[in-house]
Amino acid sequence: MVVKAKSAFNRDEYLRRVQAVKALMRQEGADLLLITSFESIIYLSGYTAESAYVPQGLVITEREVEPAFFVRALDYVAAQHQCFMSAARIACYSEEYVGVAGRDGFDFLIERILDHREASGSIAIEKSNLGIEVVDKFQRKLQPKGWIDFSGKIETLRWIKSDAEVQVMRDCAKVTDAAMMKAVEVARPGVRECEVAAATLQIMTCGVAGVAPDYVQAPLICTGPRTATAHIYWANQVLEKGTQINIELGAYVHRYATGLMRTLVLGPPSARLQAMHEAELAGLESALTVVRPGRTCGEVARAFYRELEIRGLNKASRCGYSIGINWMEHGLSLRRDCETPLQTNMVFHLMLGNWVDEEFGYVISETFRVAPGGVECLTQAPRELFVL
Amino acid sequence: MVVKAKSAFNRDEYLRRVQAVKALMRQEGADLLLITSFESIIYLSGYTAESAYVPQGLVITEREVEPAFFVRALDYVAAQHQCFMSAARIACYSEEYVGVAGRDGFDFLIERILDHREASGSIAIEKSNLGIEVVDKFQRKLQPKGWIDFSGKIETLRWIKSDAEVQVMRDCAKVTDAAMMKAVEVARPGVRECEVAAATLQIMTCGVAGVAPDYVQAPLICTGPRTATAHIYWANQVLEKGTQINIELGAYVHRYATGLMRTLVLGPPSARLQAMHEAELAGLESALTVVRPGRTCGEVARAFYRELEIRGLNKASRCGYSIGINWMEHGLSLRRDCETPLQTNMVFHLMLGNWVDEEFGYVISETFRVAPGGVECLTQAPRELFVL
Repeated sequence: MVVKAKSAFNRDEYLRRVQAVKALMRQEGADLLLITSFESIIYLSGYTAESAYVPQGLVITEREVEPAFFVRALDYVAAQHQCFMSAARIACYSEEYVGVAGRDGFDFLIERILDHREASGSIAIEKSNLGIEVVDKFQRKLQPKGWIDFSGKIETLRWIKSDAEVQVMRDCAKVTDAAMMKAVEVARPGVRECEVAAATLQIMTCGVAGVAPDYVQAPLICTGPRTATAHIYWANQVLEKGTQINIELGAYVHRYATGLMRTLVLGPPSARLQAMHEAELAGLESALTVVRPGRTCGEVARAFYRELEIRGLNKASRCGYSIGINWMEHGLSLRRDCETPLQTNMVFHLMLGNWVDEEFGYVISETFRVAPGGVECLTQAPRELFVL
Repeated sequence: MVVKAKSAFNRDEYLRRVQAVKALMRQEGADLLLITSFESIIYLSGYTAESAYVPQGLVITEREVEPAFFVRALDYVAAQHQCFMSAARIACYSEEYVGVAGRDGFDFLIERILDHREASGSIAIEKSNLGIEVVDKFQRKLQPKGWIDFSGKIETLRWIKSDAEVQVMRDCAKVTDAAMMKAVEVARPGVRECEVAAATLQIMTCGVAGVAPDYVQAPLICTGPRTATAHIYWANQVLEKGTQINIELGAYVHRYATGLMRTLVLGPPSARLQAMHEAELAGLESALTVVRPGRTCGEVARAFYRELEIRGLNKASRCGYSIGINWMEHGLSLRRDCETPLQTNMVFHLMLGNWVDEEFGYVISETFRVAPGGVECLTQAPRELFVL
């Protein structure tokens, strides 16, 4: 008997999620659904071990209450340890399917699916997660009555968090805030960029206020001319007087992330930086004022861009996206042209990073929840341009 | 003019890699090659910014010396900053292609490819990296004379490192060793697992001996019954007297990783743990003795398994794999049945993690290089069962 991990959510919560997936399956006419997106596997089973570099997946059918999980033998104990399902619902494939030509874990899965009576019906897969040769293999060996593409469908459920998920993200945001404030504390002339990174990682790994992260990702720390870039971790440089530092980071709890960006400057800000900060802050606050169930993503976005434009500025990229398990969730963006209505317990990263020209950018963001009466900002670090 | 980053490798090194890819293209009859694997993009351009969550890729043709890179506008400056190619070889697509239904960066790329005269020839893509709908789009819009699947082909070049790459990995291994020894220093009864993780992250972020990592990944720290699992980061637990701790970690320099595993125990080891350590250590040393150019992966593996079997033990999984950019490289494993010959400057993670039953596992590993006369072990932490 494998010891069970303390579960992120209770059994009822997982079963409710599985029920929602089954409702989607009925709607799409799918008799059997194979889920291979790592994030959706986490969502529907509680499994977070880092084994997605080999084939693994959940199989859901109408008649079975719990999903079945297939995983590599090496990760079989981890699956039993973490998944909410009973051990009998977890199957594993041997090393004969790993690291060899012409065969992988999907061949094992196909054999198992053929044992299901639902295999003769319509099969749904997430095509965008599967290489074409895998899809070909499924087609050739299973020959189902019909194929349904479930790409992105489970994400539509994940967009709307339960209260329990919101609580996890609320806790997570406390750690995120503390990590940012630690960066504000340590970033000074003479300090290496990597030391700022390490200080934030210490907080994001050990947590604060009783919140225990179980995973960590490197922060993005862009200084000097690299403030014009969005996705570089850090460089081997020592901070100097006058250096501007753009930071994006986020802690993870049960693999739920909360994102946060702030701009720091080691000395008096330039007029340009100050003006940019004021415009973006006005846009941020205006956007948050609009948030409530029934308003649209586009209305929130337009409130932000309007404040920027009034001040003669603009921002090329969208101003946010749905955030949850492993950070970004596809398909739900804060864009001017997105008329999707906000619903209670959607959570967004209102991401106002603005990479303006070849050597200047500015960042600020918040992770917020759509609350029944308006907005709940999960991240709560001061909305300052930190002048240090 | 965007400031250029200090490059990981010189221009000649990148051009030599591109030339090797062109030779592969001629061999396969490809007129135009699109590379979308993040690791191969890093290998052939120097670009490491974390933007692979949207479409991006390199295009290589015979007549152009440098690859062309297409990337999201938001990452255009980062691409100019990091890539060895001239700015003119980098193209970017606007936000109109991001986060909307029915259109993405690949549509932009297809338009650009159509401008190439090679587009009417044979086009090679890495099919295993592309969703089926992307492949369909390429097929429909480009209608080339022929399609060639280049999946895994560039990896065959990456398996054999240049001397410059080996030097990067040698440096990287120093940081990896130091991080492991830091874990040995801090892991004691009363310490939280996350504190061990944070201590290793500090080293892997800031480096040692003048080596500057530019990225970091969370270590895997499995204690108690979780020693039976391979891929869980850490749990919210306090270490106790007697606790066994299995650690897998690796620093990153220019995105090259070196892996290292060690087992720690907070008190006298059980007879079982001690016997397992001795058997694995004998296997490790025996395997390394076999390494030299011309011997095979299988010979190395068999030397390891033989020592285990003599002692009445076994290990289900392969005993290693090629390691380089972003850790594991596919297609080259240390398996008993792999008769691929070793070549000078192949680098392997000899990964002897052995997850035995539902509550016990043991780990030890080294990252080694195939040297002209034998083996060069890049990681050099003491090969001990650390009894603390």
